[in-house]
Amino acid sequence: MINLRNDYSSIASKDVLQHLLKKADKKYVGYGLDNETKKLNQLVKLKCQKDVDSYVLSGGTITNVIALNKMLTNPYDAIMCVPTSHINVHESGAIESSGHKIIYLPNINGKIDISKIEETYSSFIDFHMVKPRVIYLSNSTELGEVYSLNELKKIYSIAKKLKMYLFIDGARLPQALVKGNYTLKDIASTCDMFYLGGTKLGLPYGELLIIVNDELKKDFKYLLKNKLGLLSKGFVGAIMFNYYLENDYYLSLAKNSQNQMKKLVKELKDLLVYPVETNQAFLSLSNIAINKIKNKIDFEIWEKNSKSSIIRLVTSFDTTNEDVTSCIKIIKSVA
Amino acid sequence: MINLRNDYSSIASKDVLQHLLKKADKKYVGYGLDNETKKLNQLVKLKCQKDVDSYVLSGGTITNVIALNKMLTNPYDAIMCVPTSHINVHESGAIESSGHKIIYLPNINGKIDISKIEETYSSFIDFHMVKPRVIYLSNSTELGEVYSLNELKKIYSIAKKLKMYLFIDGARLPQALVKGNYTLKDIASTCDMFYLGGTKLGLPYGELLIIVNDELKKDFKYLLKNKLGLLSKGFVGAIMFNYYLENDYYLSLAKNSQNQMKKLVKELKDLLVYPVETNQAFLSLSNIAINKIKNKIDFEIWEKNSKSSIIRLVTSFDTTNEDVTSCIKIIKSVA
Amino acid sequence: MINLRNDYSSIASKDVLQHLLKKADKKYVGYGLDNETKKLNQLVKLKCQKDVDSYVLSGGTITNVIALNKMLTNPYDAIMCVPTSHINVHESGAIESSGHKIIYLPNINGKIDISKIEETYSSFIDFHMVKPRVIYLSNSTELGEVYSLNELKKIYSIAKKLKMYLFIDGARLPQALVKGNYTLKDIASTCDMFYLGGTKLGLPYGELLIIVNDELKKDFKYLLKNKLGLLSKGFVGAIMFNYYLENDYYLSLAKNSQNQMKKLVKELKDLLVYPVETNQAFLSLSNIAINKIKNKIDFEIWEKNSKSSIIRLVTSFDTTNEDVTSCIKIIKSVA
Amino acid sequence: MINLRNDYSSIASKDVLQHLLKKADKKYVGYGLDNETKKLNQLVKLKCQKDVDSYVLSGGTITNVIALNKMLTNPYDAIMCVPTSHINVHESGAIESSGHKIIYLPNINGKIDISKIEETYSSFIDFHMVKPRVIYLSNSTELGEVYSLNELKKIYSIAKKLKMYLFIDGARLPQALVKGNYTLKDIASTCDMFYLGGTKLGLPYGELLIIVNDELKKDFKYLLKNKLGLLSKGFVGAIMFNYYLENDYYLSLAKNSQNQMKKLVKELKDLLVYPVETNQAFLSLSNIAINKIKNKIDFEIWEKNSKSSIIRLVTSFDTTNEDVTSCIKIIKSVA
Repeated sequence: MINLRNDYSSIASKDVLQHLLKKADKKYVGYGLDNETKKLNQLVKLKCQKDVDSYVLSGGTITNVIALNKMLTNPYDAIMCVPTSHINVHESGAIESSGHKIIYLPNINGKIDISKIEETYSSFIDFHMVKPRVIYLSNSTELGEVYSLNELKKIYSIAKKLKMYLFIDGARLPQALVKGNYTLKDIASTCDMFYLGGTKLGLPYGELLIIVNDELKKDFKYLLKNKLGLLSKGFVGAIMFNYYLENDYYLSLAKNSQNQMKKLVKELKDLLVYPVETNQAFLSLSNIAINKIKNKIDFEIWEKNSKSSIIRLVTSFDTTNEDVTSCIKIIKSVA
Repeated sequence: MINLRNDYSSIASKDVLQHLLKKADKKYVGYGLDNETKKLNQLVKLKCQKDVDSYVLSGGTITNVIALNKMLTNPYDAIMCVPTSHINVHESGAIESSGHKIIYLPNINGKIDISKIEETYSSFIDFHMVKPRVIYLSNSTELGEVYSLNELKKIYSIAKKLKMYLFIDGARLPQALVKGNYTLKDIASTCDMFYLGGTKLGLPYGELLIIVNDELKKDFKYLLKNKLGLLSKGFVGAIMFNYYLENDYYLSLAKNSQNQMKKLVKELKDLLVYPVETNQAFLSLSNIAINKIKNKIDFEIWEKNSKSSIIRLVTSFDTTNEDVTSCIKIIKSVA
Repeated sequence: MINLRNDYSSIASKDVLQHLLKKADKKYVGYGLDNETKKLNQLVKLKCQKDVDSYVLSGGTITNVIALNKMLTNPYDAIMCVPTSHINVHESGAIESSGHKIIYLPNINGKIDISKIEETYSSFIDFHMVKPRVIYLSNSTELGEVYSLNELKKIYSIAKKLKMYLFIDGARLPQALVKGNYTLKDIASTCDMFYLGGTKLGLPYGELLIIVNDELKKDFKYLLKNKLGLLSKGFVGAIMFNYYLENDYYLSLAKNSQNQMKKLVKELKDLLVYPVETNQAFLSLSNIAINKIKNKIDFEIWEKNSKSSIIRLVTSFDTTNEDVTSCIKIIKSVA
Repeated sequence: MINLRNDYSSIASKDVLQHLLKKADKKYVGYGLDNETKKLNQLVKLKCQKDVDSYVLSGGTITNVIALNKMLTNPYDAIMCVPTSHINVHESGAIESSGHKIIYLPNINGKIDISKIEETYSSFIDFHMVKPRVIYLSNSTELGEVYSLNELKKIYSIAKKLKMYLFIDGARLPQALVKGNYTLKDIASTCDMFYLGGTKLGLPYGELLIIVNDELKKDFKYLLKNKLGLLSKGFVGAIMFNYYLENDYYLSLAKNSQNQMKKLVKELKDLLVYPVETNQAFLSLSNIAINKIKNKIDFEIWEKNSKSSIIRLVTSFDTTNEDVTSCIKIIKSVA
């Protein structure tokens, strides 16, 4: 069975596991006080060309919640984001459980409608209402779209004008970097805090949280510990991310997933529901067709309708030419 | 430098990493819906001889907080534990940050004074006060002590009498099993929920939470997601714990650490502050002596005093004969 | 200046204050353990014809949050309500600050679109999402509308079918009782918990929370204390509500406000934006007209637009014939 | 029956209720935007001789929790106080429920052992532990003791040195002012935030929270709303506190309670367990004696022992000469 269900279906890139094995003879200090973590911190500063702080966390939801908690210092501080945001729909209320309200920004597909940010902000007028404090966006988005560098700059400048923070959920940031043709340095110039995902691109776990704004750096490790995100073997994450970043290994993984997606899309473009920007494609197929292929390809049904439905195909760091060729053949035989 | 600072200084047992590599070609369903997780769940039921539920979490603090949150359904529900408990001292207020008060049980060293549990419980009399709801203990304790099976049974029967839950923090449970000469089945018969630590015994991360009491099983995955503990690549943890449990691999790791500790203690027994039960030893040394050895052995200063201080030595799954022999030699040369 | 800004602009009905004075010589036990509270509890049972529990709290927001907290036992439990709900817009994120997500029900003006409840419920499918647990509605609504008894019965039966709770925010419940022509007994038969507002109808403070569903009664006083709602001089609230309920005094106050509103509306009906059901009227006036009257009548601008805006007029327990006559005259002179 | 159970057993001073009646014809703006609130705010500034902010809340627990929440901006921030503190024992875990840990300061009876503050602070060393952020004390204390102005100054200067806040729980502050012979101005010079209790001295409800430190003033009303403390009829509290403060009416009430206590103590001094400083006395009586008087005097049993127990007598703003004379007679007849 060909697996195009998502990009977190493999244990990890074998290179990463072999690298861990190579490093397994040494002893390291716990809780991020080790040299591999120091090295990572330096490397990230270099990549961002800024004096940023960085931390490795275990997954996306915990990274989102802790990062946002740092920015939302008052209980009446709220997050503005589009309704389809991961934090709004697919984190089982973790944000609200941490004490904060999510308020909605108008959207164009899965992206923020930039022209509406100020108006939305202005509708929160007094102490009976929450105070918008953070703009949250994910890049690439839930639907695989990518913000252009120019869009990010605009949003960031609005955030600054409104004295808000901008946070970028980067669970799939490597995909955005490849597609958007910009760098970690660019991202670090257009937001207050962001993260670079590892779990969805070849690591067994791990998101690299990067704090750009100095106001948000103080005592971050206390917060990490208190909010359940501090890993005792911090050095494992550091070793993995050092490998991931060196020689832009992670970008090569992202490129593979996008190249495979391009091949797929080229042959199946008539079925597409949205334009494909990264490693996700949404296809419309009749329910009869879906039934025929579902034992040959592993995918997710995104939207179930009575006659034809929308399925999602996701390519990954380890998707092969063979996977793609077979997939095209199978789908073409029924579409 | 010999590392006896703690038992979480290595990336992982190489066997475990190699096992991951061997499994790295396959694809797995995310969020614990995979077959390795199913296999683990079955294996744990078998080991416990009970219809328990089980989940892999990333570390000790997050496991403690989420497990306790499941048991503390009302905001006025409190945890009773000894003051030296990890949750009270070394989790940066994570329990209180999750909304619950910790109240103190009288202790004998690091263990609960069992004769005082009911009296303590009875001092909470009305709605102006909290309601004690959970007894928390760690086994082995912060000081490396082990509860006997009989002690656990007594505490559990008091808990049941008071309609409280008993939760066992098992960050170092393998050490207790080896020393106490009892099994996972025994533990599963004397508490409502517990966990079996992996991070402190050869895994790169991972604690295996086991829910015994049926009342605590419902919708646990919702809680895991909401409280930031659900790992998207749940299968990685499952693969590791399947390996860890099969053929009692984990017990063999714990035995090594205790055997090495026994050798160490035999030669250094005059310096001991507490009797040594597992893989931790607390030694009293003059500050002058400590200064002389601190560049040769990596350890923690447990209690700093003006003339002589207490240091802690911890052996690990990968502590070697050589480590021990050298350590003895170094300490003897200054003591 | 005529005050039609809202229904909580007076200290209290003088009858209530005089009643307090009459009772001021006695001593009472604190924290709701007094005889006036017992008497109130009995009276409420009688009025509801059910074995309900009852408590007096200080205001609407704290009553909403504590009542909902009792029903939302898990952190992933969510509230379903219409977007215009007070808890969603005008409580500064208090619900989310207490840890729970609000999800939206489709609405028809300010009322729930009953036909859409089940569909909305069904869209929450797994542990990545929240679990809808409570339906919240206010009666009368933010816009002054009233649910018919039949509508309430329908919503309650859907709630039961979905194993959800139904909570009625009754900050203006007396208005609904008068307009809807039903009683406290009817309300107690169509929900799990509700409250009868006093602050918006002649009391200096006070909402009477009534717990119908037995599952929600246990240890409620612990929750009240822990969540900041337990008043030490509980007897003051009890004395006031005993007076309020006896001989349906509160209904006579509500009737006055609605009678005055009827007179107002009769003369100004051409300006109405919505049909008027209780003591609130929404009028459309040119901004020029608004400017002319704003120093003679105290009201709220509900929706500000470029040429003409919507103003809200609210009558109260102590609105006089003179207030109404003058108000009509003033508005007619500019409209 | 003579009531000496506590100082919150009466509805209110009749003067206060009559004053409310006198003001009941007017209309006021809600949520503290009225002129009575403005007047109160000015009056408090004058009394404190500082540019303080002030707010009326409904009771002690909610005032403590919200005030402390303002000072504890990070979830790992902790409160230091003596173990007998009201927030630690008698608020049903409300502080922890709001997310913060309480850590203990050594005490001398119910007062802080000032010599131990710095040492306690210094034992919290890194990110595994909480950060002490606020010193909490009550004045008068739970046992009726009063801090001297000099003691307060010392504590405040230590707090400043450690970059901590000092918060004074003033549920019975009027008692301390009378006994300690200092003023609101003095208190406002020796802490960052405090409150002046009304509930325990003749008001039906109400605590006047005073914010001295500028850092703590911003957006306080958002916090009040979000954390359930904002009263819609804020003007009622303002009217009461204006009356309470004018001509030092509140001090006259406190004086009466202390004068009555002095008479009581003079005759019963052999039974005293602690020295009496304000309006609370703790007496040791045989259980037989207690049984004989308990139907004639209403009091609290503070500590129940097998033969003789400790009872607490509290005088109040409305305790009469007759109450005291009878009480003495009754107790003398059995002691």
